[in-house]
Amino acid sequence: MTPILPEIDHVAFVVADMEAALETYRDRLGFPVLERRDVPDQGVEVCFLDARPVRIELIRPTREDTGVARFLAKRGEGQHHVCFRVPDIRQAMASLARLGFELIDETPRQGVHGLVAFLHPRSTHGVLIELLQKDE
Amino acid sequence: MTPILPEIDHVAFVVADMEAALETYRDRLGFPVLERRDVPDQGVEVCFLDARPVRIELIRPTREDTGVARFLAKRGEGQHHVCFRVPDIRQAMASLARLGFELIDETPRQGVHGLVAFLHPRSTHGVLIELLQKDE
Repeated sequence: MTPILPEIDHVAFVVADMEAALETYRDRLGFPVLERRDVPDQGVEVCFLDARPVRIELIRPTREDTGVARFLAKRGEGQHHVCFRVPDIRQAMASLARLGFELIDETPRQGVHGLVAFLHPRSTHGVLIELLQKDE
Repeated sequence: MTPILPEIDHVAFVVADMEAALETYRDRLGFPVLERRDVPDQGVEVCFLDARPVRIELIRPTREDTGVARFLAKRGEGQHHVCFRVPDIRQAMASLARLGFELIDETPRQGVHGLVAFLHPRSTHGVLIELLQKDE
């Protein structure tokens, strides 16, 4: 059986202060920064670090009305989600729904690096899982 | 600068019921099981799954007096730690202490696959980080 989620792309940590987090992860731990950008339509600032063989995404909410902001307010800084690359996100979502997994997104939406959708942690033993179909 | 934590080995999820978690992760999501074992001296049962290019570790506490059991009682199932392989754990721990990171373990202890030590989430923006020097 081929796993529906064949490969981890990144692990994401929610942070309250991007500069403080970068002082820790970039300056002291030494992870190279691959990319940093504001994503105003999602209400977050993100920064990707190279933690071979996957990446670390630091996410900071920039608005209060987002899931990331509510997560930070409720649980504090820490691990937020694990992202898996899939070759065809619509097909993966259909398979997951058929297997009884609860999808947060009914249809894929445009993320920073491609189409994304999230599985509800209720159906994955508490782990927020992101699916990513990378842009060509 | 070479990162002190050059490479992610696995991401770990704490679960309350290993059979239920395996029904989700192995049977429905299709991740191959690499290894499953009881670790009585640590009060946990662990199961490693292949989520290329890293592994997923499912951890279930088997005693109440462990950090994993307290984590589960307090926060519920979900992401527990991220493990980084290091070539020399004592050297990595000394570098991290010098840089102001708080270590939970003062000296490395024997884990399932080698010497391990944990960084306190207080000093890593809420992320429990494990260091692992793999057995030869």
